[in-house]
Parts: sequence; structure tokens; C-alpha cells
Amino acid sequence: MSEMAYEFDEILEQIHHTLKTDDKQQFKEIFLENHTYDQAQIYLSLSEEQRQLVYQYLSPEDMAPVFEIIEEDVEDVEEYLREMDERYAARMLAEMYADNAVDILQQVQEDEVRKYLRMMPHKTSNEIRNLLNYEDDTAGAMMTTEIIAIHESQTVGSAMTTVKKMAEEAETIYYVYVVDEENRLKGVLTLKDLIVHKEDVKISEIMVDRVVSVEVQEAQDAVAKMIRDYDFLAIPVVDEEEKLIGIITVDDAIDVIDEEATSDYSGLAGVDVDEQSVNPFIAASKRLPWLISLLFLGLTTAALLSRYEGIIGQASVLSIFITLITGTAGNAGTQSLAVAVRKIGLNEDESVFVKTILSEVATGIISGIATGLIIFVVVGLWQANWILGGIIGVSMFFAITVATIAGSLIPLLIDSMGFDPSFASGLFITTVSDLTSVFVYFTIASMFLEKFLGI
Amino acid sequence: MSEMAYEFDEILEQIHHTLKTDDKQQFKEIFLENHTYDQAQIYLSLSEEQRQLVYQYLSPEDMAPVFEIIEEDVEDVEEYLREMDERYAARMLAEMYADNAVDILQQVQEDEVRKYLRMMPHKTSNEIRNLLNYEDDTAGAMMTTEIIAIHESQTVGSAMTTVKKMAEEAETIYYVYVVDEENRLKGVLTLKDLIVHKEDVKISEIMVDRVVSVEVQEAQDAVAKMIRDYDFLAIPVVDEEEKLIGIITVDDAIDVIDEEATSDYSGLAGVDVDEQSVNPFIAASKRLPWLISLLFLGLTTAALLSRYEGIIGQASVLSIFITLITGTAGNAGTQSLAVAVRKIGLNEDESVFVKTILSEVATGIISGIATGLIIFVVVGLWQANWILGGIIGVSMFFAITVATIAGSLIPLLIDSMGFDPSFASGLFITTVSDLTSVFVYFTIASMFLEKFLGI
Repeated sequence: MSEMAYEFDEILEQIHHTLKTDDKQQFKEIFLENHTYDQAQIYLSLSEEQRQLVYQYLSPEDMAPVFEIIEEDVEDVEEYLREMDERYAARMLAEMYADNAVDILQQVQEDEVRKYLRMMPHKTSNEIRNLLNYEDDTAGAMMTTEIIAIHESQTVGSAMTTVKKMAEEAETIYYVYVVDEENRLKGVLTLKDLIVHKEDVKISEIMVDRVVSVEVQEAQDAVAKMIRDYDFLAIPVVDEEEKLIGIITVDDAIDVIDEEATSDYSGLAGVDVDEQSVNPFIAASKRLPWLISLLFLGLTTAALLSRYEGIIGQASVLSIFITLITGTAGNAGTQSLAVAVRKIGLNEDESVFVKTILSEVATGIISGIATGLIIFVVVGLWQANWILGGIIGVSMFFAITVATIAGSLIPLLIDSMGFDPSFASGLFITTVSDLTSVFVYFTIASMFLEKFLGI
Repeated sequence: MSEMAYEFDEILEQIHHTLKTDDKQQFKEIFLENHTYDQAQIYLSLSEEQRQLVYQYLSPEDMAPVFEIIEEDVEDVEEYLREMDERYAARMLAEMYADNAVDILQQVQEDEVRKYLRMMPHKTSNEIRNLLNYEDDTAGAMMTTEIIAIHESQTVGSAMTTVKKMAEEAETIYYVYVVDEENRLKGVLTLKDLIVHKEDVKISEIMVDRVVSVEVQEAQDAVAKMIRDYDFLAIPVVDEEEKLIGIITVDDAIDVIDEEATSDYSGLAGVDVDEQSVNPFIAASKRLPWLISLLFLGLTTAALLSRYEGIIGQASVLSIFITLITGTAGNAGTQSLAVAVRKIGLNEDESVFVKTILSEVATGIISGIATGLIIFVVVGLWQANWILGGIIGVSMFFAITVATIAGSLIPLLIDSMGFDPSFASGLFITTVSDLTSVFVYFTIASMFLEKFLGI
């Protein structure tokens, strides 16, 4: 790795030099020799002035692969497009695989999109327009339409001819799909099947007719999960009539898995964990909105606590255990929430939700009893006061049970409101469990206060 | 999806029926028609008695693909192996791709491993023995040794012959690697390159000679990240002398990405988030160890608080703000920790660590100032007491600054001790930030106590 990093720095230096000396030939040679991922890294390291030179040196066809990489995670894509000549940008977008062009166009203003589409070949703009219509986060929005489809009456030899002809255009040539006259998906073969069989073998003899496919409306995380489970390199996408309309490749599945995992983690931590900046002002400005929201939500707990100030004044020992109860209940709630977020992410079935909640109620009660008993004994011994131990133990039991149930309900509620269940999940569970814990604790404490003070 | 689920239930029923009627022929037909992922799901749904029949019906060669799927996430693999005839198990393991056989053997006791290896063909057992020697979580432990390697002096036609010959054995035939006489990696081509070029073209003319590869000692998450970034289907693995020794395929990269993301998330939440069970006793038994650890760590905060009971007795209003300060500092610490965990996961470079910590110190101070000022004003107005506001504000500032720094240091410390930086991270940050927050708060409060009580 360190060797590679060194080499890359050297390449960057050479690139900058060719730009400075306006040496187009040398630039093209060095730049195009790199893998597209590295080309993208080079491109991203340039200033606008330097990028303008690159647009002169490289054709839209050369730039297209660079933007296939960039679409995945760069926020400035719109700016890049705008600084290009319009026709250059349109040609580059047309050269890209339709799914990646769509990913980029989704970040661009609508009138700009229309402008680019008008400048493209009719067939391409139609393909892209269709894909743009699919709902975000569905198979339709993930798929590309450049696929290799053959008929079952073809032979291996004629299929190979089709594959060779489509090789430049298709995003993957390693799966070949078999369709009938009405374009309905009938079978699948791998390129491996084609090369190991004789030329005159009929496709119908060697194809696999149990094809795993996804419907165009399928959620993107379910699609990614299928590709992962089946170890596929790609999965075909069909419409309601089983007609083959697209393909989703494994690289897009990885991006979705990564994205979902990051958003779950970010939701729990209350921060965009992929924040790239080391500038502390930018980092703080991204974290503060969450932190201040949590602060104000925390004030509700403080306000509730202030109602019990009188009790605390009479028995200040009670204050010692506030953080213990809110903290432990918060942890139990976070556990249950994290499990629920993953379950929702992996499953769409409503019956699972009901089962999950019932199971969490029971889990909460069991955890509550265990934890409550332990703290009853510990506090009883420590403070040599079994009534205080009882108050803390019973409060802990109720607080944990409520927090555990809340932990599984919150992501379900957020999900049913149409948001990502991980969204702000850490924020809600902390607030809810703090409030209920404080309420439970002081309600129980005040019930036993006289007895407690009497000792 | 629902249609598929329906179909799958039907297949399961048929399978159970063929087992009941001891209909070997029918069983084989139905079972082998399925995709290997579904075969694995069928196998996992069977009782031990039924599995014993399956071992009679299916050859070790038939079972091998099923276990390629199962290795990824099933804990009972050792049990399955033990219930098989030893020779059957050894033959099945020998039939598997070496990397997957290794994954399974890592879950098996050493003397059992030796027994299986003795029953395998010499070449296979040697391959597996070599792989078993690589450190866990490195490229070496992820890779498989079944690769297609050719020489640059070969032609496209002769390369195709090699590919066809190796097609059954190699895990992927879509990348073909070019090596010199000493097996040093020189270039790469895709199967696509081979099929679009004429038979007599020299490999050296069409191969890409800038090959992206990983060293055998490379960490598995760095490897997975490279496959993801470059959109590779596989990446070659080389030893210190640049000799080609293996290949890592994209399906294994997905598993690593998934696994890392899950372990980060689990570490923050203090629970194995992939817990499958809906049995609340099992769920509770898995969560309680964490919860009780957190409880005892929380007791340290309670013990610290008990030292300040006297102060609270004099000014019970102070107790209202304990959870607000510990909670907000805990959130700031969690944000900083989550960012640090991801940065460590993605990067191996030490200079990044130093930069990260310096940046977190500054971010903590900025966040602390902003949050402290807000709470100063809010508490000052709410309690009509600006000294109290000042105490809370200054405490908040220090508590957040310390927690933010601790949040970036904790995963670094865990990492430098050789553990996964996400391990128990949520547990440590909560405890550390609670303790420091309480200490800071009451130290400052006691400094101003006389002034405060004097009002």
C-alpha cells in the first residue's frame, strides 16, 4: 500500500507538470494509463483551471469512466457539469452506463437535466428518462439497461457473436439472459457456460431456467442483500409482466450495503460518520445541530427533574442514582433499537414487526428483572439500606422494560412515517428513555419516601 | 419476493416428502435444480435425521457448493461435519474452494483439522495448510489459490484454452493474470479482452501492465475497500517478492464490508445487532453481559456522585442538571468516537491519527463553547440565576471538550492494544464521559458554592 501511495504521488506530480507545460499528448498518455478509480482521484485533485484544460485534452468518451466512479460519493458533481461545455457534458453523460448517468442527473436541477437530455441521442435520452422515473432507493433506480439478452433457440456460437458485439456497451458480459419473443425472462447463462460448451449446442440445453430476479419496485437494500447472499455478479430486473428491463451489478450492491450500514451507524451516533474534513470548524458545524437538538431534548429531562427537586432536597441520596438508572435504561434501549433497525433493514414483512415487538417486551422484562435484582443487592449492601435498594431495583426494572420496548417501537414509527428507520434513532431513544426513567424513579421514590425517611 | 417465498415453501414441502418416502432420485432432482443459496437454506431447515439421508443421497461434490454458502454465517458447521462420515467430510472440504474450506476449518478443533487434511489429496491439503497459516483478517486468510495464470508470450487462443481447462476449478475465470517465469505478477486481462480479440494476438499486446494487487499481509478491510473503490470482481494477492499466490473475489469483499459495518454498529450499541433469535431468553442472555457491565461501570459514576452528596444536600437544584451534562457530553463523545472508528477502519497511516486527534481537540473546544454558551443563557433565564447558568455553562464546556477528545482516543487505544477499535467502544465512552462530566461539574460547582448559596 505504501508503495502504491508513493507511486500515486509521483503520477500526480507528473500530471500537474504536463498541465503546467500544456503538454496534451503527455497528459493523455499518463492519465489514461491509470485505472479509472485512480483517474478519478487525479481529476478530483485538480483546480478548476486545471480541470478546464482536462476538458480540452480528453474527449467526453475518456471522461465518462471517470464520472462513473465520481458519482458514488462526490457532492460537487453538479458544479463539475456546469463548468463543462454543455454539449461536452451531454455527450459524456450519454457515454456513461445509464444507471450511473441517472445517479448524477438526480443531483442536478430539473431544467439542466432537460437540457442535457435534449442534446443526447434519442435512444439514450429515452433510456435515461425512463430510469429517472423510478422511485429513489428501488431496483429501478439502481439498474442499468445495457444488458445482453438472447433467445433460447440460439446456439452457443451465435450467442457468443452477440456477446462480442455487445461487449463494449454492456456493463457486464458475464451473465447472459435468455428471453422469449415478448422479452420475458426465461433463463440465464454465464459467459463461462458459453466458453466451455461447443458452438453448436442449443442455448435451451444449457441455460438455467430457474432465474433469480427482482421486480423493478423492489427496495434497493433487499436487492443488495440478494446479490450478497447468492454471491451474484449481477441480478436481472423484471417488470410486472416478467419482462426483462434491466440489470443490477455487484458494484452497485456493495455501494448500497455500505451506504445503509453507514446511515445506520450515523443515525445511532448522531453524526455523519463519513465526515471527511479535518477542519474542526466544519466538523463542529456538522455535529452541533445534533448536539444542540439533544441538548434541548435533554432540557425536558432537566425540567422533569426540577419538579422533583423537593424530594431530592429531603433525600439527597436519591440524586446519586439518577445517572445510573437513566444510563442503564438508555443502554438497554439502544441495544433493542439497534437490533430493530437491522431487522427492519433486512425485512419487509409485517408479521416480523409484531413478533419483534412481542419478543422485545419479553426481553425487556427479563433484562429488567435481572438488572433490577442485581442493583437491589448492590445498593442494599453498599448503602446498608434495603428500602433504598428496593426503590432503585424496582425503578431499574420498569425503566429498562420501558426503554427496551421504546427501542423497538421508535424505528418502526420512524419507518412507518416514511423515513429511514435509523434516522435520528440515537437521539430519540436517549430522550425517551431519560424521561421515562426519571419519571419512574421519582414516582416510586416518592411513594416510599415517608417509609424511607422514617428509617 | 412474496411469490418467490411461496415457491420456496412449496419446494421445501416436496423435499420433505421425498425424504419421508426415501425417494433418492426425486430428492436429487429437486434439490440440485435450486441455486446453491437455496440449497443451503433447504439443508439448514432439515433435522439431523433428514441430513443423514441427504449425506447418503448426495455426493461430497454435490455438498461442497452448499457448504461454500454455509461457511459465511452458520455457527453449527462443526456439528455438521462431525455427523458426516469422516471421509465424506474430507472429500467435501477438498472439493470446496480453498478459501472457504479454510473458513470452515478455522471453526473446527485442531486435531479434527489434521484428521481431515490427512484424508485429502496431497496437493489440496498442502494448499489448505498454507492458507491456515495466514493471520486472521488478512488478505492471506481471505484469498483462494485457484487462479488462472498465463504467460505474456502466449496468444489469445492459447490463453483461451487454459481458461477453458481451468474453468471448473478456478473461483473466477473473468480475470486472467499474467506472470513471468518466476511467477511474478506482470499483467492482467479480463475474459472480455480475450473474447473480443483475435486468436493470434499476443497477450503482451493487450494485457494491462499496471496491475492493482494487495500484499498477503494486508488487512482484510483495506482489501475490501480496494475492491469496492475500483469496482473489481477480484484482486490478485502477491507475496513480498511480488509473486502471485492467490486471488480475492468480490463476494468475499462484500462479506467483509458487511461484517465490519456490523461490528462497528454492534460495538456502539453494545449488542450483537445480527442476533437472529426471537426467543427473548436467548436475546436477553446475549444482551445482559453488556448491560450488567455497563451497570457496574455506571456504579463508579454513582460512587463519585455520592462524594458530592453533601453539596447536593445544600443545593438540590444542582441535581437537576446532572443528566443534562453527562448526557450531552456522552453524545459529543459518541459522535467523535464514531467518526474515529470509521477513520481507523479506512486508514492505516499513523499521521492520520495525529491529525485526527488534533482536529478532535479543536472540534471539542468549538462544540464546547457553542453548547456551553447556549446552556448558560437557557439556564440563566430559566432559573433566573446567572451564577448557576455560569456553573452549568462552564461545566458543559469542559465536559464536552474532554468527552470529544476521549471519543477519538478510546478507539485508538483499543486499536493499539490489538483489538477491533469498535469493540465495546460505546461502553467505554459512556463511562469515561460520565465520570469526567460529574467530576468537572461538581468541582466547578463546589468552587462557586458559597457565592451561589449566598444569593
